[in-house]
Amino acid sequence: MDQPPKLRLYTSAPLAAGAAVPLEAEQAHYLCNVMRAAIGSAVALFNGRDGEWRATIAEAGKKKALLAVESQLRPQGMEPDLWLIFAPVKRARIDFIAEKATELGVSVLQPVFTKHTVMSRVNDDRLRSIAIEAAEQCERLSVPEVRDPLSLDALLADWPEGRRLILLDEGGGGRPIAEALDDLPAGPTALLVGPEGGFAKTELDALRALSFAVPVGLGPRILRADTAVVAALSCYQAICGDWCRAPRSHSSTN
Amino acid sequence: MDQPPKLRLYTSAPLAAGAAVPLEAEQAHYLCNVMRAAIGSAVALFNGRDGEWRATIAEAGKKKALLAVESQLRPQGMEPDLWLIFAPVKRARIDFIAEKATELGVSVLQPVFTKHTVMSRVNDDRLRSIAIEAAEQCERLSVPEVRDPLSLDALLADWPEGRRLILLDEGGGGRPIAEALDDLPAGPTALLVGPEGGFAKTELDALRALSFAVPVGLGPRILRADTAVVAALSCYQAICGDWCRAPRSHSSTN
Repeated sequence: MDQPPKLRLYTSAPLAAGAAVPLEAEQAHYLCNVMRAAIGSAVALFNGRDGEWRATIAEAGKKKALLAVESQLRPQGMEPDLWLIFAPVKRARIDFIAEKATELGVSVLQPVFTKHTVMSRVNDDRLRSIAIEAAEQCERLSVPEVRDPLSLDALLADWPEGRRLILLDEGGGGRPIAEALDDLPAGPTALLVGPEGGFAKTELDALRALSFAVPVGLGPRILRADTAVVAALSCYQAICGDWCRAPRSHSSTN
Repeated sequence: MDQPPKLRLYTSAPLAAGAAVPLEAEQAHYLCNVMRAAIGSAVALFNGRDGEWRATIAEAGKKKALLAVESQLRPQGMEPDLWLIFAPVKRARIDFIAEKATELGVSVLQPVFTKHTVMSRVNDDRLRSIAIEAAEQCERLSVPEVRDPLSLDALLADWPEGRRLILLDEGGGGRPIAEALDDLPAGPTALLVGPEGGFAKTELDALRALSFAVPVGLGPRILRADTAVVAALSCYQAICGDWCRAPRSHSSTN
């Protein structure tokens, strides 16, 4: 069997055999100048809806390129319905959260402002770019949706019925995470991580009282917010999510 | 009960009631100039052997300071015997690995050179500084030992009897990590993560054949090496390590 193409790009265009996919300036530049791909080079494409497709470069220029879609490499499968709700933190660490959460398979990135959140705004476009790049690299078939920031109150006032909220309870009130996840019913889930300074006591009390909240603890050490995000998402995927199935084979070179 | 001091420092000096602990220039600068602590300010101290102690600043200068040790805050407890063995990656990501592994409770950081490792040297001193700072922040009572880099062959030739090796098998040959960890016997453990390019096929074949190796998989997406480190350490602590016990209470402000 052919090796899948090493170049991999996200597009919003529909993907089907024979489709022509135009690339914008930034992707064309990456492909033709950074990666030095030429006409005829193979590229894997995904759009979050139609699976992954093999395409070749039909036209290449400095500011645009055209890809010819050939055949499907992988069908679109089911992915975990897992939201990450996080208080914005400083730039390097928020970039890190967006990258890692994408690799770890979240479906929605939802920034939330809490009482102790120091940051007052979020660069959504930047988070979207990071999520796209991480999705391209980690071989996901989708890109997480980056939602507009909300206050914690607004988020909870409009909470979707049936979605569980795993609450990272830095106050020590939660169950050990593996034990709590073992008992978690299957279904839509969200993970909530507070800011570096922690939740305010009033916030934590209100969150713990929610019928859909599952307060969990991450051990005896104080984790930074970005560490807690990766740690909790990893435990979720390992115990409840798509790491429970046997892994698909990845290529390994000699 | 008094709140524990917000300032927290690692020292190599012995800690006991009445002991005087001199600080070197860098720590004195941090304490007195960066954190603006004055004579009489409380500081928590730990050295990895004697637990955590409350001390106060007895003498303060630009280039040195002296702390007077008063009373024990926490006894030294048992910590997981967990080594992280990792192929060096680029600077921002190796810094990240040292910080996160410290927060996640590893006892040893062991850099290892594999066939596909791009980096040819490691700045041990820098990793030690990062580990100390992370240990101070996360309220650990110890700092992981940063060992000199070794080749994979040298590491395996001198493998300690009785220590399990959790192998992050990016070739798809491993069991889902939660399932493998559920079956892991208690005892000394090491986690091995390859370089960004993965292990060479010959390396992976040899590793899989080791009697003490437990190959595991981290799901269907390709994780970066630094993500894989945090993900696997988190799963280990949650399922086999010190996150299984009920968390101790952390303070939360209003």
